[in-house]
Formats: sequence, structure tokens, C-alpha cells
Amino acid sequence: MNKMSSWEDTIVALATAPGVGAIGVIRVSGIRALDIADALFPSKKLSGCKSHTLHVGLLKENEEAIDEVVVSLFRGPKSYTGEDIVEISAHGSPYILQQIIEACVRKGARLAKPGEFTQRAFLNGKMDLAQAEAVADLIASNTAAAQRTALHAMRGGFSQKLKELRERLIQFSALIELELDFSEEDVEFADRKQFYTLIEELQDTTKRLIDSFQLGNVIKHGVSVAIIGKPNAGKSTLLNALLNENRAIVSDIPGTTRDTIEEMINIDGILFRLIDTAGIRQHTGDVIESEGVTRSLEKMKQADLIIYLFDVNDETNEVEKQKNEMELQQLNYLPVGNKMDSMEDAALKFDFSDKTLFISAKHNRNIELLKQRMADVVLKGKVQSEDSIVTNARHYHALREMQKSLNDISTGLNHQLPGDLLAPDIRRCLHYLGEITGQVTNEDTLDYIFSKFCIGK
Amino acid sequence: MNKMSSWEDTIVALATAPGVGAIGVIRVSGIRALDIADALFPSKKLSGCKSHTLHVGLLKENEEAIDEVVVSLFRGPKSYTGEDIVEISAHGSPYILQQIIEACVRKGARLAKPGEFTQRAFLNGKMDLAQAEAVADLIASNTAAAQRTALHAMRGGFSQKLKELRERLIQFSALIELELDFSEEDVEFADRKQFYTLIEELQDTTKRLIDSFQLGNVIKHGVSVAIIGKPNAGKSTLLNALLNENRAIVSDIPGTTRDTIEEMINIDGILFRLIDTAGIRQHTGDVIESEGVTRSLEKMKQADLIIYLFDVNDETNEVEKQKNEMELQQLNYLPVGNKMDSMEDAALKFDFSDKTLFISAKHNRNIELLKQRMADVVLKGKVQSEDSIVTNARHYHALREMQKSLNDISTGLNHQLPGDLLAPDIRRCLHYLGEITGQVTNEDTLDYIFSKFCIGK
Repeated sequence: MNKMSSWEDTIVALATAPGVGAIGVIRVSGIRALDIADALFPSKKLSGCKSHTLHVGLLKENEEAIDEVVVSLFRGPKSYTGEDIVEISAHGSPYILQQIIEACVRKGARLAKPGEFTQRAFLNGKMDLAQAEAVADLIASNTAAAQRTALHAMRGGFSQKLKELRERLIQFSALIELELDFSEEDVEFADRKQFYTLIEELQDTTKRLIDSFQLGNVIKHGVSVAIIGKPNAGKSTLLNALLNENRAIVSDIPGTTRDTIEEMINIDGILFRLIDTAGIRQHTGDVIESEGVTRSLEKMKQADLIIYLFDVNDETNEVEKQKNEMELQQLNYLPVGNKMDSMEDAALKFDFSDKTLFISAKHNRNIELLKQRMADVVLKGKVQSEDSIVTNARHYHALREMQKSLNDISTGLNHQLPGDLLAPDIRRCLHYLGEITGQVTNEDTLDYIFSKFCIGK
Repeated sequence: MNKMSSWEDTIVALATAPGVGAIGVIRVSGIRALDIADALFPSKKLSGCKSHTLHVGLLKENEEAIDEVVVSLFRGPKSYTGEDIVEISAHGSPYILQQIIEACVRKGARLAKPGEFTQRAFLNGKMDLAQAEAVADLIASNTAAAQRTALHAMRGGFSQKLKELRERLIQFSALIELELDFSEEDVEFADRKQFYTLIEELQDTTKRLIDSFQLGNVIKHGVSVAIIGKPNAGKSTLLNALLNENRAIVSDIPGTTRDTIEEMINIDGILFRLIDTAGIRQHTGDVIESEGVTRSLEKMKQADLIIYLFDVNDETNEVEKQKNEMELQQLNYLPVGNKMDSMEDAALKFDFSDKTLFISAKHNRNIELLKQRMADVVLKGKVQSEDSIVTNARHYHALREMQKSLNDISTGLNHQLPGDLLAPDIRRCLHYLGEITGQVTNEDTLDYIFSKFCIGK
């Protein structure tokens, strides 16, 4: 892999969000970064200044002042990309920021591709691939759990553990490859017992990481929740009760508006996406009841979690039927009896009271308890330390492949296969292990991964 | 004016545009800024570090890592506000940025009001009021002319000249006030001839600045243009010809979309807003012609500039009538004969050919010339050095008041009025002069001015 050619470019991009702000930051990275800074910032010879310093002055192109700016100076390798970086903090007018970017381009930089700064950081060994991918997750994080997991991963997280195991596997692999050279002598350089222990350890770690993916996925993408029930069960009231609690919290986050987060609630740092809430708001009682159930079945199939809401005063046998149906289909559901204010002893009437929660959506009773149950259903049996949560589908697939190779190695060891038959499986395992951290990689994979980034990162 | 009380607060705000970006910058300013940095950034004692330095590390609150950040340190008075400033450059997730802002608040900062950083800069004498106002103009600038004018004003621009004149007027004022103390002795400390010269100089500068406001307004807000003419004159083709040229340029600016700038074109750094373009697109020939003219009259009254488009093949006397009507109403109009491709000698046919421009919208002929004419009409007789362009309505009104006082002083001097009768007019003039630069001000004015800023500036 000859990466050096592309490094001869100096790249530039807007690093802050687009739009008008008090300030905007333009990032320039590469071997010409300091020359470009010198050309645009004539009042001070920045290329002669120390790393990690700030400089205030006029940014000019050909004697024409563009803006009064602050320039941050990071000299490679002590920078984000490992190269010289100049960050220009200018007044946050999109017009001015564009002028500055164009001036940088005229002085020899080129526009950066999405994720190209982080790609350089990876290629320069400033972070491994899993860490680089976590940068994008961190930027996209919108709950405490997502932020914590991504930050942990960015700081080395589970890839550290994997790298360590990979080192040890490489040692065994080398010994086994060595055996191949001496195959006629029937020697064993690699201690089979120790090797078996390592494989078990790897199997254990891999399984733990694979198992964590379900939770990781939930952390990253949220849990889809369908509220189903007959038109008069109080779904719309429940929806409002669930949403109202969070309205103040979510609207505090800059850049989010009430519209876009309307159907999301955050419980214990987990995002729950309430699906088809518009549909719930439309069903105002004039819908034919039987149709309500048909629609519900559709929704159920999309949801990670179903809240089955029924009126505790419902005298029909529909509630039992619906519940049996969901059990039969092995759906992940929470039965919730509403309007308990009108019937305090609802719990006595129903047979499946161990699982059923009784609430009053209208009077806001047990809504907190319902939220807790929703969080419990997701987290139950999945609570793990944050260093072992996989959120990335690419990692998940590599881990699954690793698991297969490890099983093959394990079977091989059990059958006391010679080194030359174990070696391909070991190499396969090492390959997938290396793919996660980026020690094994190819240009296409890299291009794909970094193309998902935002520009300027 | 006791401003010290509010300075005991340390303020915090997001300084970059809201939304997701690679990075986001949070600005903290005030006496507790360094303490807050120390509390949130445990790996290094920032309060012990030099000004204008950058520090990379983990931002933590109570042992919980929030993000890996870069902290910029500016020690007062060598900072934007004149106070200690800490800028935290974090990953650009709105969620994370909000967490950091909240952590700063928990450590003792309060959320900044719009423009509060710049307000502090003004109150700490880092810039005068006209300069502070130019900061907001600079952020809002979206053409080269607006950016140049705002940058010039921010860097002192015309307020420097006004401050100098004010100093000299104050000296005369003091001498004249002194005369009042000796009024019985009939002495003149202030040389009337020199004083008259100063008043003339002030009148001259004031007039020049007042005259510049029309151009300043155009630079800041753009020129509204109405394209009028009969339905078959080719208005919609002309509109497209004018817009197409600019499409590529404007869509390059991040944060702007095709939708929002659809009806603006930038000619020589001046923004032209094409009004009622939707209307033009709807008139597709099936409109009754007489109604077309009535509608046109409505539009004319709203526009700074009218492009009167007619078909050179039009054999009726309508063109002449319309032209006479516009002359009569003293409207600022450009007669443009379209479809010249079908009649090369059109210029000969029409009597007002000195002013009329002949184009072919369809074949893109003379469109550049039309644009040049549009720019000329706006700039004609108004080209001035950039230091003397007033873009701010508040300044304009103060200048108008100054002009009145100066005329009164001038008249007084011509009538050889004694100092005690001149003094009130001089004070009035000084008052308005000081209002522009903020040497005379009141809290309400300041609050109003800075409330128009974006948060974080």
C-alpha cells in the first residue's frame, strides 16, 4: 500500500457545522499547511512559531483583507492527523468562510474528501481503524450511552484488547509456521496447551463482543417501539404522556427542533423511537375496531419492542387473544393496562399480572414505571462494561468470521491436527482480527469507511 | 453606568453554527473562565499556562469523560472580550456540545445572551460601538462588497475619523463653555474662524456619510429589482438567463441551498433581489395583457430598480406609453428591448435608444451588458472609498441629527451668536456623534444593539 503519494497533498475543509455562527473553523492539514498560513497571514511568520500556539491577525490574499482571524498552529506529528495542521477561526459568515477556503485552494491546498483528516490520522498511526470509526460515531452520538460507548472506543476501548490478543496469536502463528519448516522432524515449537488456552480466551472475548452487538446497535440506533391497541385504549394519551416528559430536555439541544425529535424519547441514555406515532394521532376513535388490530399486526413486525395497550374495562376476550397471538409469534412485548384510575383492582382481574403493568396515561400514573420497564426489557441480560460493546456492523461481521475460524482452530486442536492444517485457519482469524483495528486493510474498505464521515473530520 | 456588576459573571455559549459538524467550539469568558477550565480539564493546570496556547486532552466532569477536546487559552486583556477566554473545541455532536455547555454552567458559568461577548469587548474598550456593530454585519455578509465594508468598519473604518472630529469639537466646546464662565467680560477663548472651519469639515464629513447610506443600504440589503413587461416580452426567459449564470457560484457556499437564493444574483459584489419571480414564472402568456400592466405598476412601487422588458417587434405604442409613465413617476428604470435576434436594427426604430439596451434573453446576447448596466445604475455617482460607507440605520439617524445641529451651529456662527447660545447645539452634536461610536450610550440602546447578534458572538 503506497499511501505516500496522496500525502503530498495539503487538504482544506470547513470543520464546523455549515450555516451562520459567531465563528467558523477551517482546517488545513499537510506538508504545505504552514506555507499556506504564511502566504495568507502576512503579519507574522507562522512557520517560525511554536506548535500549539494561537495567533490573531488579518487574513489577506494579495493585499486584500478577507477577515480578522485566529490561527491555531499544530506541528506534526503532535497533531490530529500527524501532519502540520493550521486551523483558521474566522467570523461565521458562510460567504467569508468560503472565501478563505478558496484562498487556501489558490495557495495550494485541495478540498478534503469526507473523513480525510481522520483517514490521515489512521494512516499516520495516530489511531487504529476502530478508533477512527468511533470518531464518526462520537459526532453522531445523541444520547449519553452512545456518547460514552463511542468515546470509549475512540480512546482505544475494545480494540486495545483485540490488538493484545492478536499479538499473542501472531506469536503462536509464527511458531506454527516455523513447525512447517521443520515438518519432517515432527517437532512442536508451539505449546498446544497454551495455544488452546489462548484460543479459548479469544473465543470468549469474541463471543462477548458479538453478544454485545445487540445492545450496541440499540445504543447507536435506538429501539423502535410500537404502541398498539384498540382505538379506545388511550394510545394517543399514552404517547403524549411519554413525550411530554422529555420535551424540555430534548429541545435544549441546539440544532434539534421539536419536529425532528417528536417521536423519540430518551430513557436512561437509550433512545426509543416511537414508530407510526402519526398513525396513532390519526386514530381518533372513528376507525373500525377490527381494522385497528390488522394495522397493529403490521406495526408489530417492524418494532423492536411492542407496547400492547388495553383498556382495563374491556370486557371482551380480545386482550387475551391478542396476548396469546404475540406470545405465539414470539414478539418482544409489554402488556399495559390503561385507565386503572377507573378500576383500581385491575391487577386482580387479569391472569398475566406478573408481566402486565397497570397505568393511567391520563393521570400520569405509573408512566415512570413503564419507562423503567421499557429500559429493562432492552438492557436485561445485556448490561456489560462499556469497553466490550460493539456498535459497528463492520466489526460485528468481522467478529462473526473470527468466531468461525476460532471454532475451526479449536476443532483442529481437539483432533490434534498438525500445524500445516491449523495454519490457514489461524491466518484467517488474524485477518479478520486485523480488519477490525485496521492492521489488515485495503483501499476500498478504507475509502468506504471514511466516505461515511462528514467533511472536515 | 455601572457595568461591573454583570462582569462578575462568567459566560458560556456555543460559538459555531448549530447542527452537526466535525468540530464545534464553545466559548467561555470571564473571571472564572480559567477556574472552570481547570475543573473540567484535570490533566493539566490550564490556569498556570501561557496565553495564546493550545492544549489537547480529556474533558471530564466528576471523573466521567465527556469528550476529547482542544482547549484554546486567551488571557485578558489580550483576548476578544478583554477578559480571560477559554475556547473548547469538541467533537461536533450537538449532544456532546450541550453536555459541555451544561458542565460549564454547573462549574459556575451562565449562558451568554446574544452578542454578550462582543458587548463585553465594547465595554472593556476593545472596540467602539460602530466596530462592534460591524462584527454582526460581517457575520451576516454574503457578498464581497458587504464583507469589505463590514470588515473595514470593524477595523475602525469611519468611526476613527468621527472620533478624531469629536475630539476637536470637544476642545472647542470646552473653550466655549469656559467663555460662559467669563460671559460678563465678553471674551472669546474659542477662535470663531477656526471653529467655523471645523464645523464646515464636520458638515462635509457628515454629508458624505449620509449620502453613502443609500449605497451602504444596497451593499447590506441588496437592490430589489422588478422585471416588468407584457406577458410575451420574454420576462421568464430573461429571469432564467440572469439566474443561470450565478447558480454555480452561489451553490458553492456551504449552508445555502438553491431554494433560498433562487431569486438573488450577485453582480460586482452587489446583491440584486429579483422580486416576484414566482409571479413571472406563473405568467405564461395566458394572462390578459391589460391586467399585466396593472400588476406591473404594483410591483414598480416596491422596487429599487425596474427592468422594463419589451419585445422589439411590438408594433403598438404601448412601449412609449409605459416609458413615459415611468418617467412621469420618476422611477428608476432600465428599458430593455428583447428578441433583438429577430430584428437587428431595433436600436434605430426606437427613439430613446441612448438609454435602452437591446438583448436576446433566449440567445443570451448582451446579458452581461445588462448586468453591468444594473450595477452601474446602483453605483453611479455613489462610488466612494470604503471607509466612508454607512450601512447601519442607527448611524444614519444619528448622522441626520448631527447634520441638523451642525446647520444650527453654522447659522449661529453666521449670526455671530454668543457662546451661551451656541453651546446647546454643540452639546447636541457631540451627543449624536458619540452615539455612533458608543462614547455616549445608554443600557437600552446597548441591549437593543447586542440582542440582534447571534449567540456566541
